[in-house]
Amino acid sequence: MRPSGRAPDALRSVRLDVNVSKYAEGSCLAVFGDTQVLCLATVEEKVPPFLRNSGKGWITAEYGMLPRATNERMEREAAKGKQSGRTQEIQRLIGRSLRAVIDLGGFGERQIRLDCDVIQADGGTRTAAITGSYVALHIAFAHMRKLGAMPAMPLKDHVAAISCGIFQGTPVLDLDYAEDSNADADANFVLTGAGQIVEIQGTAEKKAFTEAEFHQLFQLARTGIGQLVELQREAIKKAG
Amino acid sequence: MRPSGRAPDALRSVRLDVNVSKYAEGSCLAVFGDTQVLCLATVEEKVPPFLRNSGKGWITAEYGMLPRATNERMEREAAKGKQSGRTQEIQRLIGRSLRAVIDLGGFGERQIRLDCDVIQADGGTRTAAITGSYVALHIAFAHMRKLGAMPAMPLKDHVAAISCGIFQGTPVLDLDYAEDSNADADANFVLTGAGQIVEIQGTAEKKAFTEAEFHQLFQLARTGIGQLVELQREAIKKAG
Amino acid sequence: MRPSGRAPDALRSVRLDVNVSKYAEGSCLAVFGDTQVLCLATVEEKVPPFLRNSGKGWITAEYGMLPRATNERMEREAAKGKQSGRTQEIQRLIGRSLRAVIDLGGFGERQIRLDCDVIQADGGTRTAAITGSYVALHIAFAHMRKLGAMPAMPLKDHVAAISCGIFQGTPVLDLDYAEDSNADADANFVLTGAGQIVEIQGTAEKKAFTEAEFHQLFQLARTGIGQLVELQREAIKKAG
Amino acid sequence: MRPSGRAPDALRSVRLDVNVSKYAEGSCLAVFGDTQVLCLATVEEKVPPFLRNSGKGWITAEYGMLPRATNERMEREAAKGKQSGRTQEIQRLIGRSLRAVIDLGGFGERQIRLDCDVIQADGGTRTAAITGSYVALHIAFAHMRKLGAMPAMPLKDHVAAISCGIFQGTPVLDLDYAEDSNADADANFVLTGAGQIVEIQGTAEKKAFTEAEFHQLFQLARTGIGQLVELQREAIKKAG
Amino acid sequence: MRPSGRAPDALRSVRLDVNVSKYAEGSCLAVFGDTQVLCLATVEEKVPPFLRNSGKGWITAEYGMLPRATNERMEREAAKGKQSGRTQEIQRLIGRSLRAVIDLGGFGERQIRLDCDVIQADGGTRTAAITGSYVALHIAFAHMRKLGAMPAMPLKDHVAAISCGIFQGTPVLDLDYAEDSNADADANFVLTGAGQIVEIQGTAEKKAFTEAEFHQLFQLARTGIGQLVELQREAIKKAG
Amino acid sequence: MRPSGRAPDALRSVRLDVNVSKYAEGSCLAVFGDTQVLCLATVEEKVPPFLRNSGKGWITAEYGMLPRATNERMEREAAKGKQSGRTQEIQRLIGRSLRAVIDLGGFGERQIRLDCDVIQADGGTRTAAITGSYVALHIAFAHMRKLGAMPAMPLKDHVAAISCGIFQGTPVLDLDYAEDSNADADANFVLTGAGQIVEIQGTAEKKAFTEAEFHQLFQLARTGIGQLVELQREAIKKAG
Repeated sequence: MRPSGRAPDALRSVRLDVNVSKYAEGSCLAVFGDTQVLCLATVEEKVPPFLRNSGKGWITAEYGMLPRATNERMEREAAKGKQSGRTQEIQRLIGRSLRAVIDLGGFGERQIRLDCDVIQADGGTRTAAITGSYVALHIAFAHMRKLGAMPAMPLKDHVAAISCGIFQGTPVLDLDYAEDSNADADANFVLTGAGQIVEIQGTAEKKAFTEAEFHQLFQLARTGIGQLVELQREAIKKAG
Repeated sequence: MRPSGRAPDALRSVRLDVNVSKYAEGSCLAVFGDTQVLCLATVEEKVPPFLRNSGKGWITAEYGMLPRATNERMEREAAKGKQSGRTQEIQRLIGRSLRAVIDLGGFGERQIRLDCDVIQADGGTRTAAITGSYVALHIAFAHMRKLGAMPAMPLKDHVAAISCGIFQGTPVLDLDYAEDSNADADANFVLTGAGQIVEIQGTAEKKAFTEAEFHQLFQLARTGIGQLVELQREAIKKAG
Repeated sequence: MRPSGRAPDALRSVRLDVNVSKYAEGSCLAVFGDTQVLCLATVEEKVPPFLRNSGKGWITAEYGMLPRATNERMEREAAKGKQSGRTQEIQRLIGRSLRAVIDLGGFGERQIRLDCDVIQADGGTRTAAITGSYVALHIAFAHMRKLGAMPAMPLKDHVAAISCGIFQGTPVLDLDYAEDSNADADANFVLTGAGQIVEIQGTAEKKAFTEAEFHQLFQLARTGIGQLVELQREAIKKAG
Repeated sequence: MRPSGRAPDALRSVRLDVNVSKYAEGSCLAVFGDTQVLCLATVEEKVPPFLRNSGKGWITAEYGMLPRATNERMEREAAKGKQSGRTQEIQRLIGRSLRAVIDLGGFGERQIRLDCDVIQADGGTRTAAITGSYVALHIAFAHMRKLGAMPAMPLKDHVAAISCGIFQGTPVLDLDYAEDSNADADANFVLTGAGQIVEIQGTAEKKAFTEAEFHQLFQLARTGIGQLVELQREAIKKAG
Repeated sequence: MRPSGRAPDALRSVRLDVNVSKYAEGSCLAVFGDTQVLCLATVEEKVPPFLRNSGKGWITAEYGMLPRATNERMEREAAKGKQSGRTQEIQRLIGRSLRAVIDLGGFGERQIRLDCDVIQADGGTRTAAITGSYVALHIAFAHMRKLGAMPAMPLKDHVAAISCGIFQGTPVLDLDYAEDSNADADANFVLTGAGQIVEIQGTAEKKAFTEAEFHQLFQLARTGIGQLVELQREAIKKAG
Repeated sequence: MRPSGRAPDALRSVRLDVNVSKYAEGSCLAVFGDTQVLCLATVEEKVPPFLRNSGKGWITAEYGMLPRATNERMEREAAKGKQSGRTQEIQRLIGRSLRAVIDLGGFGERQIRLDCDVIQADGGTRTAAITGSYVALHIAFAHMRKLGAMPAMPLKDHVAAISCGIFQGTPVLDLDYAEDSNADADANFVLTGAGQIVEIQGTAEKKAFTEAEFHQLFQLARTGIGQLVELQREAIKKAG
């Protein structure tokens, strides 16, 4: 029995609210149950040094948590003077995941920066950030295209992400914090709309797990990501 | 004529939404027009070293802006590895302002930390932070009192804040960004519910101004703060 | 009765010693009783990025305290690896105050940097820094003018500063540390030679104060600043 | 055809040299072709704060690269003043992997710190670090046991790691740098001696890949890790 | 011919002004020509961790330069966020030099911290700092002794320092900046009152030099340090 | 009697292994008994800003210790976020020492960076680093010359270094850690192949020492450095 009463293969209630920022070129508030991640896309008219004069653009991401986004307040990273290893790991993952479905040669020498800020956290913030960032990025590209910045949308496919885990011996989809903090193992899956693998991160938390269990987690993830891609489509449509 | 079409003595549309966090002991989202500041109060069961064994508590504040809270994206302070002088100046101001109306001897050796995070900025973020933090703090104290942590509420009065400025020669109340960035002078006023001075910061932006002009700004501030205190009362009532 | 035996409206003994540095283009040691602040002006032949090709110059300030400038030794900021919020707040104030009386278009694309270093502190270091920096800046401009760098002095007026406070119920001028650390409220005033407001910072330390009290502090400040401007005139004359 | 001429399922020449340090309680130089990682285990008689009085120990890891371990010199992290996101990600991975096969309750309130320093890098440094660290850790435990610090070895199983990838369309084992920098996808596998999963990290580098391809990488990894576990056994035996 | 017109074996005009601080337990302004170093001794009632419960005290030093102490303004170390290698090298040298003549067992578990701040620099700041710090330290010990903190002065001998160098082929004493920046070689000597060696640092600046030249520099240093020790005696006597 | 049983004027067993890196343009592993320092030379096709358009090159050095290079593990400098004063002092010394024998005008506007990383430490790491870096630098120059980057080798002479000290009253050559940590005094000598002085650093550790003792240390150093220069010659010859 899951603490939330959900079925093993049930997502939390998910919302992808678009156009939530007065300023950002693309914006999406990704809500997975009590988890809220604000994803804002900023278009910058220059690229990092290693891409200058390459004709290519770049996608990068930054991730942060408000200090009291969690039950126990965490020290503010700006006050500590550095980002934790966890923060850096997550923002690298978001950037890689988005770049996997983008034609970097298709939007000129520009950088799009995704700011993923966790307003409230209840598990699954990195996967919510990827799922919401795709929507914000899509809106930003559509905005640029309207301005004539490029002839076609440089997106090759959707990308979305979800976590799965083994909780009290049962493989379950979309862990919330109560499950995540007690899981035997968990895995984050980042898949394309076509179901191909962009990134897989599986970790034994309490004990090593078998290939068969891993396979079960994978199938749960497929189911969930299929639903998320559908929600992305609706959100993009709504954004106009 | 103000860019927003407001009368010189008109506040923007103000909302103080309470209980917006699943975790914080007190919470308030302060909305002044397009400015949104999330104020979360965290109760900590220990005090800074200089107050140990004093029987007194402490109130402190931290302030941050999401990188794309503004029209031009700012670099993330956690990524830069330090908080700007502006950030530190503001969080010191918020802390001082709240402590001025609190009986520090009235809630034990605890620290209450106010996290004021600007989700969107359109001028007046520091005054919104003070006004909203008072509400979050009040809710946190009420929560502690219900738990039996103290016999009485340690709040001596309300505290609220507003900015005023001289815009195109006219003194106006509650500057938005379009006004703030072009004001001849501006001043932030922090007053108690009884109308006494907690903090005044007046700055000539384009040219020095007269004592008579300063007096006019002060009277505008009194009017605005009177309305804010009323909104605080309603918010606290709604919070239960 | 003030600890120093001064009358409520009496400044401490003030000296503005000029040409105290072998290297700086302008220099002034501002001495207010036991407070000593060395103010050195450095002329730099380039401006910050935001002013390049604008035809305008810039004035900025840095502030520091020697570790044992105070009764209790403070940790050296260079050793801690960062400047405190207080330091940054003060150096921003000094820069703003000086810029308010300067024609930034009148001395070319140059930056003048004021280093204000507190050799010994007994209250009022930020106001001494402003008052002395004006003199150092004037001397630096005169030096540049002799070299033919500009046709006229780009100074629109004097600027000087003083603190006032309510000590044991009485408004007093020019707080020393013994008063400052026990004041009910204090306020720093930065005024022009013509008596207009450049900056006002009033803070309730022990309790909120009234508009009438604030008015009394303002009048004390006017008196003191009038005397300081006279001392600035003499110092500049002596500097030649 | 692989640049090295190896068969798709062939490891590089691997050596796990033991007792290479005069000081460390356990040491192993892991050599995979031209990749050399020095793994030193240090036993500390105290645990991190969150484990005090828990009766449990902790295993942690640090990772570094000499600046010219690579073809292009990288800036020294100590000189830059911070560890990169990549470094932090890797050292977190090493620590998690080792903890997965250790009984943390079996060696008292001690911390064992694994320093994994890359002397020369030619791909696969993180997997070499895990494989070598297991040996260093085993030697350190044996050393502690001889001193009577614990009644039994607290190791539940072996742990070893290897990378696989899709290079020019073919799944291959144990990528060297020439392959790694041109792979379509790669994956790091951390498995126990019994073949269970401790950690999986799969990443699409050039394009998303299929579940079938992922399965092929997994089977290659099993083969390689089986051989590595055998080499670990020999190394431990030799260490005595 | 030296730029200053001094004879090869002539010190600059040297002054060791005592009791120049209102707060420090010992103070000395060391003036060597245009070089001015303020040396303030602070007595702290605790020692660094490695000396706790040892019955011994510690002497340490910090060194800083005001940004415009030199002809070209240097960036403020507190603003840069770190102390340069040069600064750290100098403060380590000052601490070692003083500890060499102190009985660390003779003043209880206390730390004396010497803050050496360069107000103006014209060569020889580190040697002026050592020479002046000895005086400040002596005064601080005398102060402590008067308070009954220890039965006897824990100073075994004087320590003083001077630089020498080969300037245009000639060995000269007490380099000023004009000489120092063009010397073929220079050396700093730290000697006791009895003429024994505490520290020698010799460096070839433009070309390697011979043992015979080194010997000449040594003899010049002896002469200069003899005079400095005499000036220290007078200063201490004057301090009372 | 020395702990190692060596005669007072005996070096430890010294090896200078060349071409130990797959990537560096010049490499030497300097082994002095149990001390091992890896010296890698990297040729960079640009110079620091102060040398741009000067036609001159630059030589610089960085120094680091693996955390468990010593008996007591030291905190990793990259993790602490800064290099210690000791580290900076040593890397400045290495750079100065090498530059003293190089014609900086003889290899174009290039920078050669020497990375000196201590794999294992048993005293004398800075002198081993200088001695080994000379060899690595020589190999890098020979490599550049083969590529036609310059007409002649820009080396004016050898440079090598050794420490000496007074141990239990006796002057001895090439201190190991057991001696170094108990020496009354020690001194590092950096001499050219012709026996001239590049750098001397003498320090009283336990008590001040005499000029006669210093002279004895100097003569020991001469002997040792003569042997080291011979070993450098052999190593360079072997490198081809």
